[in-house]
Amino acid sequence: MNDSLGFRELVGGVCVPQGFLAAGVAAGIKKSGAKDLALIVSEAPCHSAGVFTTNRVKAAPVLFCLQKIRRPVYGIVVNSGNANACTGKEGFRNAQIMAETASRATRANGNFLVCSTGRIGAQLPMKKMIHGIHQAAAALSVHDRMAAEAMMTTDTFAKQMAVEIRLQGKPVRIGGIAKGAGMIHPGMSSTGKSRALHATMLCFLTTDAVIRPFLLQECLHLAVAKSFNRIDVDGDMSTNDTVLLLANQKAGHKSFQRGSPAHRLFQNALEHLTLSLALMIVKDGEGISKIVTIQVTGAASAKDAERVVQAIGHSTLAKCSWCGEDPNWGRIFCAAGYSGAKLNPACFSIKYNDIFLVKNGLEIKKNLQKVRKIVKKPSFTICCDLQLGKHSSILYTTDLTEKYVELNKGE
Amino acid sequence: MNDSLGFRELVGGVCVPQGFLAAGVAAGIKKSGAKDLALIVSEAPCHSAGVFTTNRVKAAPVLFCLQKIRRPVYGIVVNSGNANACTGKEGFRNAQIMAETASRATRANGNFLVCSTGRIGAQLPMKKMIHGIHQAAAALSVHDRMAAEAMMTTDTFAKQMAVEIRLQGKPVRIGGIAKGAGMIHPGMSSTGKSRALHATMLCFLTTDAVIRPFLLQECLHLAVAKSFNRIDVDGDMSTNDTVLLLANQKAGHKSFQRGSPAHRLFQNALEHLTLSLALMIVKDGEGISKIVTIQVTGAASAKDAERVVQAIGHSTLAKCSWCGEDPNWGRIFCAAGYSGAKLNPACFSIKYNDIFLVKNGLEIKKNLQKVRKIVKKPSFTICCDLQLGKHSSILYTTDLTEKYVELNKGE
Repeated sequence: MNDSLGFRELVGGVCVPQGFLAAGVAAGIKKSGAKDLALIVSEAPCHSAGVFTTNRVKAAPVLFCLQKIRRPVYGIVVNSGNANACTGKEGFRNAQIMAETASRATRANGNFLVCSTGRIGAQLPMKKMIHGIHQAAAALSVHDRMAAEAMMTTDTFAKQMAVEIRLQGKPVRIGGIAKGAGMIHPGMSSTGKSRALHATMLCFLTTDAVIRPFLLQECLHLAVAKSFNRIDVDGDMSTNDTVLLLANQKAGHKSFQRGSPAHRLFQNALEHLTLSLALMIVKDGEGISKIVTIQVTGAASAKDAERVVQAIGHSTLAKCSWCGEDPNWGRIFCAAGYSGAKLNPACFSIKYNDIFLVKNGLEIKKNLQKVRKIVKKPSFTICCDLQLGKHSSILYTTDLTEKYVELNKGE
Repeated sequence: MNDSLGFRELVGGVCVPQGFLAAGVAAGIKKSGAKDLALIVSEAPCHSAGVFTTNRVKAAPVLFCLQKIRRPVYGIVVNSGNANACTGKEGFRNAQIMAETASRATRANGNFLVCSTGRIGAQLPMKKMIHGIHQAAAALSVHDRMAAEAMMTTDTFAKQMAVEIRLQGKPVRIGGIAKGAGMIHPGMSSTGKSRALHATMLCFLTTDAVIRPFLLQECLHLAVAKSFNRIDVDGDMSTNDTVLLLANQKAGHKSFQRGSPAHRLFQNALEHLTLSLALMIVKDGEGISKIVTIQVTGAASAKDAERVVQAIGHSTLAKCSWCGEDPNWGRIFCAAGYSGAKLNPACFSIKYNDIFLVKNGLEIKKNLQKVRKIVKKPSFTICCDLQLGKHSSILYTTDLTEKYVELNKGE
């Protein structure tokens, strides 16, 4: 498909790379009886890399992964229906038990990483969890879709994809599954510590590439910065956001060096995969009707470019107008104005796709009819040019709908 | 009513202080034919004070007022139905014409301040404006309710109130009218320049107090910091937010000094008036069903306290859960976590009114039923204690409802 870029897309998810198995079962955590527990297991120990929510309130599984990441791991155990967040010491102990149970049940006898997603504040039903992990271990196969399904909360479709590159004549694959629909405003870092932006979104990536641990982390960090950290549904950064990448070294090529053509091929393919999975999350945003890409150019600084995309992407009023298919550029202009970025209203322009609606701070009335047609499309791009410098930023976001509010009223 | 505090509430608005007249008419700016133009006029020249939006995109009337404020003024001319924002040089010239027309039509022959509220981006219909201002000048009276009505946009009720103190045996009065329902997240300063938080809200205050211009500005600044700058409906800071205070010196007492008992009496009364008017705006938030007061205590710094109230007040998910009467404390905890404030999850507590739902980071399950009853009330307080210091903050906000989205879809 994207063969010109050196990679091609494959059907499937985390079991496309060699040596990975997965399973998804219903452990009874969700009242609905839907699948809620997944296992991903490698037949050989993996180098692991991860990025985690920068929320200061981190769920127990995030705290657990932060301790274990970069050690050789055998797999990942994940549940939906309960976030195991704000659960104190008991929650942390339960995350440990999940990992230990997965290790024993799969007879891997090694480290497992742990993730959870769902409502905050309740302890996990550990009897059900332990039984479910054993069930999943018995169901392991190369069919990875069930694992993707078992991660879903308010998601309406399972998200998975895989890509393949060739190194030294050998196929090298990266596969991924993701979940996320609400509480989407990831701001992740590898330590969970550095200040970043503001999901529960989870993404598990597997690869059979032969790559050193430090470079693996670097590749993941960069790919997440350009994908999951560039999406936003509702501006709420979760306590559980996690992206994990396991590399089991099974492809049989020689380990590649930083900056080599092989590294670039791998990075490109990884970035294509993470951006594709990230955009699936935006597409599945709770109750949304529009996907809107915000581009900012001409900002005086990188921070200013970021401020403007974030202010527009978080503007309740702008998001409502997209839902109403109203080319209400005033709300976009207004949000840019309060973003804190340096801005000269007389130099500000707004394009919808390729059509200018505002130029030098004033409406181009004759283009209004064309823009009315653009905002009726299911997705469009709004580009704001500040004409003050050379810095730019991008954010993939959504509208705000009555359906979103209804879905999140809760109980 | 609040006689123990040294002031009492009076029925009425800007015409309660001596020497002020007002009028509100339908000039034809609004398609509905509702009232859309108001005049407030003093029979004597006034000291004036004002605070304005800190949005870098300032509407033409805001730019005009910033030039004229603190000069002696005779009154205010205001229209609804069109914000005169993002209208360039023509917009600024139109604001000037509004002031000049008001001056001539009222035969004041002096400065007038100007305000506008409504949709951003269209030029004012100046023929209708000029005719309307003459109509309003002919209709001036001590009945101030029509002026409050002519400022309404999506407001469902006219907002006005007055207070009275006594100085040297003489009654001294302050009256006010306000408008605002959406695009409410005022962050105003006297220069419109300093960085502050993030409505269109307009408020016009009149007083017959004898007070020097500099102290008048200081009194207003402090009163706005504790009222209009502490409310939030949707987190969008308008291009037009303005609070103006005119003092015509008619009460006949001796001018009071900073720090004097008279100053304190005046300040208390002014703060009661501005907070009452600000809370009327919150109560009239577009489509809202709940008024929620967020209190933060125990923060390590004033900035941290502010970060936490703002993050909770802006959390789309927390606001949706209030609408659903769901005591979803996890979303509040989560928002505090991504606010950027220093926070130790194990020390964090959340009270709904006087009931602890979270203590030291963990849910107090036995209180859940009591809290369920509290969140069903039309208004309640959520108090978060960080136990890290002695800094606190407060924000008066609302839920987010399907109705809000419907009202703001536009067109």
